[in-house]
Amino acid sequence: MLLISGDMIRKVYTMKEAIEATKKAFMLFSEGLTDVPLRTHLAVEEHNGRVLFMPAYVKGDFDAVGMKVVSVYFDNPSKGLPAIPSMVVLVDSSTGIPKAILNGTVLTQMRTGAASGAATDLLARKDAKIGAIFGAGGQAPSQIEAMITVRPLEEVRIYDPNKSRALDLIDRIASTFPFNQVRLVATASPEETVKDADVITTVTTARGPVFSAKDIKKGVHINAVGSYTPDMQELDPAIFSKCDKLFLDSKDAVLEESGDLIKPLNEGLLSETQISGEIGEIVAGKKQARESEEETTIFKTVGIAVQDVVVGEEIYQKAIQAGIGTSFEL
Amino acid sequence: MLLISGDMIRKVYTMKEAIEATKKAFMLFSEGLTDVPLRTHLAVEEHNGRVLFMPAYVKGDFDAVGMKVVSVYFDNPSKGLPAIPSMVVLVDSSTGIPKAILNGTVLTQMRTGAASGAATDLLARKDAKIGAIFGAGGQAPSQIEAMITVRPLEEVRIYDPNKSRALDLIDRIASTFPFNQVRLVATASPEETVKDADVITTVTTARGPVFSAKDIKKGVHINAVGSYTPDMQELDPAIFSKCDKLFLDSKDAVLEESGDLIKPLNEGLLSETQISGEIGEIVAGKKQARESEEETTIFKTVGIAVQDVVVGEEIYQKAIQAGIGTSFEL
Repeated sequence: MLLISGDMIRKVYTMKEAIEATKKAFMLFSEGLTDVPLRTHLAVEEHNGRVLFMPAYVKGDFDAVGMKVVSVYFDNPSKGLPAIPSMVVLVDSSTGIPKAILNGTVLTQMRTGAASGAATDLLARKDAKIGAIFGAGGQAPSQIEAMITVRPLEEVRIYDPNKSRALDLIDRIASTFPFNQVRLVATASPEETVKDADVITTVTTARGPVFSAKDIKKGVHINAVGSYTPDMQELDPAIFSKCDKLFLDSKDAVLEESGDLIKPLNEGLLSETQISGEIGEIVAGKKQARESEEETTIFKTVGIAVQDVVVGEEIYQKAIQAGIGTSFEL
Repeated sequence: MLLISGDMIRKVYTMKEAIEATKKAFMLFSEGLTDVPLRTHLAVEEHNGRVLFMPAYVKGDFDAVGMKVVSVYFDNPSKGLPAIPSMVVLVDSSTGIPKAILNGTVLTQMRTGAASGAATDLLARKDAKIGAIFGAGGQAPSQIEAMITVRPLEEVRIYDPNKSRALDLIDRIASTFPFNQVRLVATASPEETVKDADVITTVTTARGPVFSAKDIKKGVHINAVGSYTPDMQELDPAIFSKCDKLFLDSKDAVLEESGDLIKPLNEGLLSETQISGEIGEIVAGKKQARESEEETTIFKTVGIAVQDVVVGEEIYQKAIQAGIGTSFEL
């Protein structure tokens, strides 16, 4: 069995690779070449936590089996621990023998950033100059990295209701590659953040819209990442009447899990016919990406286990090639 | 994260401990102190395999979270690989952080033997002298070990339709402890195997009865282990009319999964009212174990994830105490 730590993942695998792997994952998913059982979860009420188990099987040539264990413990940060610790197990698809354990926290950050990166690459204007991100938490760096990996942005604006968090984030990352290739700005208001922005990513735990639809410019692309429960919401429902294309990672999962779509659907502010399709259908050449500079596009993602297995399997293959990883005979 | 191999498990943990842990696991389960979501599985058809994910949470004082990944690949033995490779993941219940990976194949052998051991300790005659086992496969040694751990048997008879497998098994184990404490005999017929036996364990992949109810003696205790799908069956349905007490590990799971009960229930040869209860209810003092030397008792087990988590957690604690295990910073 090969053990691959977070540092090892960062050493062997780039965001650019994660973005291409994620496109492939979405395509395989939308083409029906994957088997993703319902995730199960344990409510660990005595410790105010939840542990989720997300298995997936990718069929055909890719041929990979794995599972992510991901916990949600909101009291962890006060103890100096990650709120969402995670681990990915890969199983050899031809023998059923567990073959690798990967740090799931780093993998999840990369694959979640990469999902927005893939959608931005497919949907954002080629000449995008200004990026904007809502939320300066643990997912922010990989979201920014994904954005600047696929578009040569000049500026990325970071908004957090607690401005000092945005400033701290900039302090931490501004001088390191690839963030030193772009101007990072902590903004004071949502309006100022989205004004003239070409790419907007929301990655917050908000229960209501984080910016107003009236403030965006025509032609913007938006990645909505944060809302993964029916009561979480980041998008202003008014945005759907301005939106030309609305793509999802998994239609079933988003309509089951995300308040960004569930709330406006229930309130009659959005109709299912406005959903353009799954992002994997663009990769497969079955749906049209952006068709003009004027189109406003939205990608809503809740995350699917196929991303973890495809990215995990590629990291494993790269680690083997690079001779990186620790072997253990279980 | 602590990595605990199969050899390390054998070094720190005894069958006697596994049996006591298993009694506790069954009690916690029957008392409703556990949360066991439906197991999910991936059918890896391209490789004729299945991968199952079995999570469980044990609440209260025991307080443990874990999951077993177990694969069923019947083509593996022809490649010199285990047919049922497995791994157990333990998650720190107070932080959600994965804390240990254990060899699940060895753990499963121990806990499955220990289940029969627990039931035998609770239900078999105290003066049991003769044991019998059907099936000389990978589970046989731990089943025999469990049997002789709880009763000072003089003889254990091993029956396999392919007698050379039983002889090979005896060759392999007869001179090692604890098997050298007992006379091991390969038998030629089911009748001869069960004649006057006090404890019988069936651990085969049979699709029909492996011995006839008419050949057993009054007062015998039977552990039926092998049948875990509706079309698998080891028990002669005629045995239920001779049986005074019929206990299960999990009533829901057995009635969902095991042909040993599903078939006779469907055929009207068994009524649900003949089920005495769950073995954990005996441990909890809520149901009566054996009441006379004459009673014939049956324990049917299909295995529940709680066993893996309770036994896994105890192995982990023992490994920590003994300074055994390999640490890895994921």
